[in-house]
Amino acid sequence: MVHIYTGNGKGKTTASLGLIVRMLGRKKRVCLIQFMKKNVEYGEIMFLQGKPGLDIFQFGTEHLVDPNNPAQIDIDEAEKAFQKAKETLKSNLYDLVVLDEINVAVAWNLITLDSQLSLFEIPTESEIVMTGRYAEKAVIDKADLVTEMKEVKHYYNIGVNAREGVEL
Amino acid sequence: MVHIYTGNGKGKTTASLGLIVRMLGRKKRVCLIQFMKKNVEYGEIMFLQGKPGLDIFQFGTEHLVDPNNPAQIDIDEAEKAFQKAKETLKSNLYDLVVLDEINVAVAWNLITLDSQLSLFEIPTESEIVMTGRYAEKAVIDKADLVTEMKEVKHYYNIGVNAREGVEL
Repeated sequence: MVHIYTGNGKGKTTASLGLIVRMLGRKKRVCLIQFMKKNVEYGEIMFLQGKPGLDIFQFGTEHLVDPNNPAQIDIDEAEKAFQKAKETLKSNLYDLVVLDEINVAVAWNLITLDSQLSLFEIPTESEIVMTGRYAEKAVIDKADLVTEMKEVKHYYNIGVNAREGVEL
Repeated sequence: MVHIYTGNGKGKTTASLGLIVRMLGRKKRVCLIQFMKKNVEYGEIMFLQGKPGLDIFQFGTEHLVDPNNPAQIDIDEAEKAFQKAKETLKSNLYDLVVLDEINVAVAWNLITLDSQLSLFEIPTESEIVMTGRYAEKAVIDKADLVTEMKEVKHYYNIGVNAREGVEL
């Protein structure tokens, strides 16, 4: 089954982290592949790194991607993440494969929509989770479960910044 | 700050689990109080139980609550969960307090809306997360962050049952 967690509200990556925890509790094997995130200190990575049954791969740079003018290295890193995703699904080694922020990588033209769609064609037993805003309609159409995390209200809009443990 | 994760889509409890993991990675203290869940095997509880910094309290019974005709014990257990939530917030011992399924406990008349609203009045430094469908408008109005997890598509609707590691 392929799950999509998209929309502009808080809770997409955290929902995938919750699934990871649930899977690990069941002694299942999980692979977390993160697009556009590297070497950034995130509380979840500090906590999950090294937990038995879980492999984490990050692709990206330490700087933010400019959606209107992504650097070549951002494109190269996203392509590596995509290749890793393909390999990982083909390997059938994991019960859950999380492709964090892949929807954004497509929306920002770091990888193509066709690349993302090709992942649906890989014969695999793995449960697949794809997160990130801007999931394309073609992706939604192919997925088995789609939740739109809709922002009803967010404290960012009143000037509260990202905080350790809550967003980071 | 008070977060609400509501709506009919998958990802509400898992989003709160993701926040728990992020907080624990930051060496912060977390209290998870679950309404209407007891002694049920959930992968997340198997994984999280005993992790340093985290306390878990479950209130409920092993049977499902009948929304139209809840048993007295369901009401009693929800009241205990509410009292625990109140105490916990007053204690100021935790950086994050998750009140899992409290929105449903109110919608099903196990505790009153006034009880839920009274939690907003407790002076506390704790970040608060309230999950569950059917969050009342008055709760949404008072909260700082609200995400509606909107079901766009769910495999339950094509007859797939809850699975270990994915829902349980």
